[in-house]
Amino acid sequence: MKAAIIGASGYTGQILLRLLENHPKIKTVIPVSSTKAGTPVTDTDAAIGKPMKKTAETDYRYVSVQTATEMKPDVVFAALPHLKSAEVCAPFFDNAVVIDLSADFRIKDRNVFKEAYGQEPPRPDLLDRAVFGLVEVYKKEIKKASLIANPGCYPTCTTLPLYPILKKFKHTGPIVVNALSGISGAGKNLKENLMYCQRDENCGAYNPGKLHRHTQEIEQELNKARCGTDIFFTPHLVPLKRGMAVTSFVSFKKELTDEMIESTLNRFYKNSPFINIVGNGRIPETADVLGSNRCDIGWRIFGKQVIFMSVIDNLMKGASGQAVQNMNVRFGFKETAGLNIFGEL
Amino acid sequence: MKAAIIGASGYTGQILLRLLENHPKIKTVIPVSSTKAGTPVTDTDAAIGKPMKKTAETDYRYVSVQTATEMKPDVVFAALPHLKSAEVCAPFFDNAVVIDLSADFRIKDRNVFKEAYGQEPPRPDLLDRAVFGLVEVYKKEIKKASLIANPGCYPTCTTLPLYPILKKFKHTGPIVVNALSGISGAGKNLKENLMYCQRDENCGAYNPGKLHRHTQEIEQELNKARCGTDIFFTPHLVPLKRGMAVTSFVSFKKELTDEMIESTLNRFYKNSPFINIVGNGRIPETADVLGSNRCDIGWRIFGKQVIFMSVIDNLMKGASGQAVQNMNVRFGFKETAGLNIFGEL
Amino acid sequence: MKAAIIGASGYTGQILLRLLENHPKIKTVIPVSSTKAGTPVTDTDAAIGKPMKKTAETDYRYVSVQTATEMKPDVVFAALPHLKSAEVCAPFFDNAVVIDLSADFRIKDRNVFKEAYGQEPPRPDLLDRAVFGLVEVYKKEIKKASLIANPGCYPTCTTLPLYPILKKFKHTGPIVVNALSGISGAGKNLKENLMYCQRDENCGAYNPGKLHRHTQEIEQELNKARCGTDIFFTPHLVPLKRGMAVTSFVSFKKELTDEMIESTLNRFYKNSPFINIVGNGRIPETADVLGSNRCDIGWRIFGKQVIFMSVIDNLMKGASGQAVQNMNVRFGFKETAGLNIFGEL
Amino acid sequence: MKAAIIGASGYTGQILLRLLENHPKIKTVIPVSSTKAGTPVTDTDAAIGKPMKKTAETDYRYVSVQTATEMKPDVVFAALPHLKSAEVCAPFFDNAVVIDLSADFRIKDRNVFKEAYGQEPPRPDLLDRAVFGLVEVYKKEIKKASLIANPGCYPTCTTLPLYPILKKFKHTGPIVVNALSGISGAGKNLKENLMYCQRDENCGAYNPGKLHRHTQEIEQELNKARCGTDIFFTPHLVPLKRGMAVTSFVSFKKELTDEMIESTLNRFYKNSPFINIVGNGRIPETADVLGSNRCDIGWRIFGKQVIFMSVIDNLMKGASGQAVQNMNVRFGFKETAGLNIFGEL
Repeated sequence: MKAAIIGASGYTGQILLRLLENHPKIKTVIPVSSTKAGTPVTDTDAAIGKPMKKTAETDYRYVSVQTATEMKPDVVFAALPHLKSAEVCAPFFDNAVVIDLSADFRIKDRNVFKEAYGQEPPRPDLLDRAVFGLVEVYKKEIKKASLIANPGCYPTCTTLPLYPILKKFKHTGPIVVNALSGISGAGKNLKENLMYCQRDENCGAYNPGKLHRHTQEIEQELNKARCGTDIFFTPHLVPLKRGMAVTSFVSFKKELTDEMIESTLNRFYKNSPFINIVGNGRIPETADVLGSNRCDIGWRIFGKQVIFMSVIDNLMKGASGQAVQNMNVRFGFKETAGLNIFGEL
Repeated sequence: MKAAIIGASGYTGQILLRLLENHPKIKTVIPVSSTKAGTPVTDTDAAIGKPMKKTAETDYRYVSVQTATEMKPDVVFAALPHLKSAEVCAPFFDNAVVIDLSADFRIKDRNVFKEAYGQEPPRPDLLDRAVFGLVEVYKKEIKKASLIANPGCYPTCTTLPLYPILKKFKHTGPIVVNALSGISGAGKNLKENLMYCQRDENCGAYNPGKLHRHTQEIEQELNKARCGTDIFFTPHLVPLKRGMAVTSFVSFKKELTDEMIESTLNRFYKNSPFINIVGNGRIPETADVLGSNRCDIGWRIFGKQVIFMSVIDNLMKGASGQAVQNMNVRFGFKETAGLNIFGEL
Repeated sequence: MKAAIIGASGYTGQILLRLLENHPKIKTVIPVSSTKAGTPVTDTDAAIGKPMKKTAETDYRYVSVQTATEMKPDVVFAALPHLKSAEVCAPFFDNAVVIDLSADFRIKDRNVFKEAYGQEPPRPDLLDRAVFGLVEVYKKEIKKASLIANPGCYPTCTTLPLYPILKKFKHTGPIVVNALSGISGAGKNLKENLMYCQRDENCGAYNPGKLHRHTQEIEQELNKARCGTDIFFTPHLVPLKRGMAVTSFVSFKKELTDEMIESTLNRFYKNSPFINIVGNGRIPETADVLGSNRCDIGWRIFGKQVIFMSVIDNLMKGASGQAVQNMNVRFGFKETAGLNIFGEL
Repeated sequence: MKAAIIGASGYTGQILLRLLENHPKIKTVIPVSSTKAGTPVTDTDAAIGKPMKKTAETDYRYVSVQTATEMKPDVVFAALPHLKSAEVCAPFFDNAVVIDLSADFRIKDRNVFKEAYGQEPPRPDLLDRAVFGLVEVYKKEIKKASLIANPGCYPTCTTLPLYPILKKFKHTGPIVVNALSGISGAGKNLKENLMYCQRDENCGAYNPGKLHRHTQEIEQELNKARCGTDIFFTPHLVPLKRGMAVTSFVSFKKELTDEMIESTLNRFYKNSPFINIVGNGRIPETADVLGSNRCDIGWRIFGKQVIFMSVIDNLMKGASGQAVQNMNVRFGFKETAGLNIFGEL
């Protein structure tokens, strides 16, 4: 198997490089970067340190998209900014399985996409072909997909606890979601508000309510579980490099019990190795899943109201790890191949 | 004026030491610590560095409560754990103005107190005398108080944006509050989950929903604004030393406008120098108010739903700064005396 | 007194704004920024929150250098990049006391300056006039100075423990200095290696040995104490916003005792309120002096070898605080006016 | 292969659990903790999340030393405090290869040990048997060892750059070593100075010069390279969880060139997959090797003086990773088996 990573010098691309180098089924990795083509990968990614064996075919260097096309990868990971990805990936759509980490193919409704991203989806002709790559929900579809829209980190961490529950139990009123994200979620952008001295010892909300683009993605997915959801989603930046914690408030029509929630989630996720239901016990923390592709889910019940807490590593289950999980499922590999279930210390 | 600080070696006590040393109206500061009596203050609080002049009367050392009693302070700040404070302060109740930073006198309803703290309030006989020390709301009562219950950090940061609004505009359904707090909010306790390696690069919720003791305090205050509030309050620990951000979701019966919210808050807080209404502009971040006694308040409107965002420094407006503000008001000093309006860099 | 701050939107300029607003002898503050002239200061410095009274004359806005000139400040603080400062300050040299926080006037030897900064000093004609603003050493000269070259943070923290000792006791062989600095020392520059995700959970040396520009400044000053010093200075970036710790290794010709070092420093610094000699006791840490203009000095003796440890807040004693201290001395104010001796918690 | 980890709930034990679970040659892992015997491992190590397969034989629980003895492990990792390890490991010395991460067997000279640890080595009878487990230097001896004294993190990071150079080139005068360490190096101890609020935004030296116990270990090893070394070693705590950076200053008798250093290191480490010589290029930073067992080595030359900079992950190459590397070499596995060469992002 040959895998290309387009945008291999961004955070998600860098993680993909590491995951694929250690992946038992990948023989060749093609690191693609239009701005860095020709440069040794170790020059811009000092943590790699020594040349990665699987990049030998490109002489351990970034190559251009053109070169990558000629190398005929079986699977292409696109780790590119929204609204740019679809175009750059064009040469691969008919020759490889494309796993796109941007938002370009995530939202099915063109008007909703426009509302979220300010313009038409770049390739509306491919929206039908694209499968939403939340493995725990769409495994069947992913197995046959040629284009997989890897979900955003916020939608992943929000949808996983809520989807099976909302599908089964009627809720009422708005769902109020608050999320905490590490700074790497903002990507490797030279912006003043991402400087060390701006974010260290600082935290706060941004794009609250309906303003974050991920709200539409969350609503799309949860609406499949239950019509009429109304999500108020407020993300917060907190001073950590990686990690995401989501706290979701739902009012149900009737009182739920721990057993009802636990058995519903257990049943839905019985074949999902990366879901860890901690229930009414420990409250999940982001460090629990650091470096892991796991999502830990807990909750507390207050009469008809339930507060769900879920955590992921935004760069793993929230991005690159999930992309590899999608590849594993798509190509019939073991779902956990090359991925950690256990968090680091 | 003589001021005693009981519990002067904890975080809030240490901040009080600094604030009072720089306060224009205080001549003598009595640092009290039962475990450290006799020790020079600089020995246990290296950041002080050089002896503070106002502690000359105690030879720059901690003294016992007994000694402090004999020195006849005019004002006593009690920076002690909940359920211990009332007892330790007993010798001062009739001879000094006591400003208690614990929860012992905050909750008026004995059953609600018991629910929150697991036992009867330690001095129910004094509950009538105690004034809830949220200056912006109870200034009139504070001016005459001999016992001031300094509010908790979470109730302060949650109540300030919501109180005037809920008083004026009818809301419906539950109010969902999510809070982020720096680690100093947990006090100087040797607990494993407060170790550097546990909290660095980690965040998550704790005591969600109705489980945090501050929920009762918030409900008590907001109920004065509007009967029937139902608060779901979820605090989160985030890796910073100081700072608190609160995000509150409220559904109103009718649509509000920015102008309605802004004018309501402006009117209510027109004499409140520490309230900074940033409105529909910048979203407040905790670093904006670091070291300051300010509370910054912003919001975003989504039809009938409004998301309020407020930030404080948990050790200043959330504890020691507010205690000094209470003293200022009680003794007729300038409300801002000895307190910063401006945040550090 | 009127004070202008040129470059008021950088880190050191922002700190100066706060220090001067609280300074008892300053009536008017003129915030100067060529790129932000006309903008309200609170728009770009959210932590200020409410308009600062002393900026009323500029309508609480940044003004241009031209406007500042017309306002005839008595003292001008230049918080500008090296090699730009001298030029921008030109209109003020004959009409105000200029306290320059850049390196433009620090190094007396033109060749040494060129070696460090790659070009001739921008105003060699003023080098004679400029006084090196290390108050603890040059107080007499500063009292009469019209141009004060505020020392760099590394030279300040390195020179203070060593200068009196090297003056008195003969050393031998190279002096090996290692310094740890918070990230704000690098200024508010949009560089990739200053992004949160690059510096969080990361540390390392940079410009080791003779490569950092501050080495020349340190050597200039220590050479005044004792000819022939040979300094090897290695700075390290560590993940904190503010703070600097310096560890210096010196071999002396004969064995020193704690008493010899202590009495030498005590004598030299007997009129220096910001020097805190902790000696052979506590080892100073940067948090001890956070927000303070203090320098704490400790040491350990091993035969003829001594290791000195000193800490400052790089933005206070290492920059803006020292600049205010220079103003205080120059204008005959109390040396500590408007400055904290005590560190924050 | 069966591996036991004694002290499996400390930081180094927790890392060993993860490394061995993913190690291709280990079939069974026995997690030993005297205080937690009987408790499921996931209860005290939330990041594991799901039961680790290789701990099935102990029912995924910690067991006592007694139980571990009965299970007859082939290799025993002792991750215990100094002065306790030798005693607890007693039952295994004759039946298993013991890799001891404490200092109990590192120092050969009983007087030097006493000087460093305040008492006689606990098992002087075994000192001859113990091999110092710095694989890059003692590979031959390790291959036959039954007791391996895994080196400390400071000695590892200091010795690796210096050993081959001091062996080849004559130096003169003292070697001055400054080290920066993440907080996990202090172990999982409930001490006030390891609390989040004490270490966040703080840094400073501790045990400078000759005071840190690791100095003796460093001197022992470097003395093998070259008699008469005199090391002044000053460690500093910096606010990161994991990571270690060492900056070493050496004066040589003659001028060295980059080529001389580079070829000497290349030759000495030609079979050492975890040594990454970055030379006179990039200066190594701790994040480069986070999660990796690599040591990156750089330097800068100033006439006869050279400053060496080396970085490791203190929990990997500085502890648990090196322990696994020792096992790999001892049992004839691939040296890199189960270990990362590449650092995390």
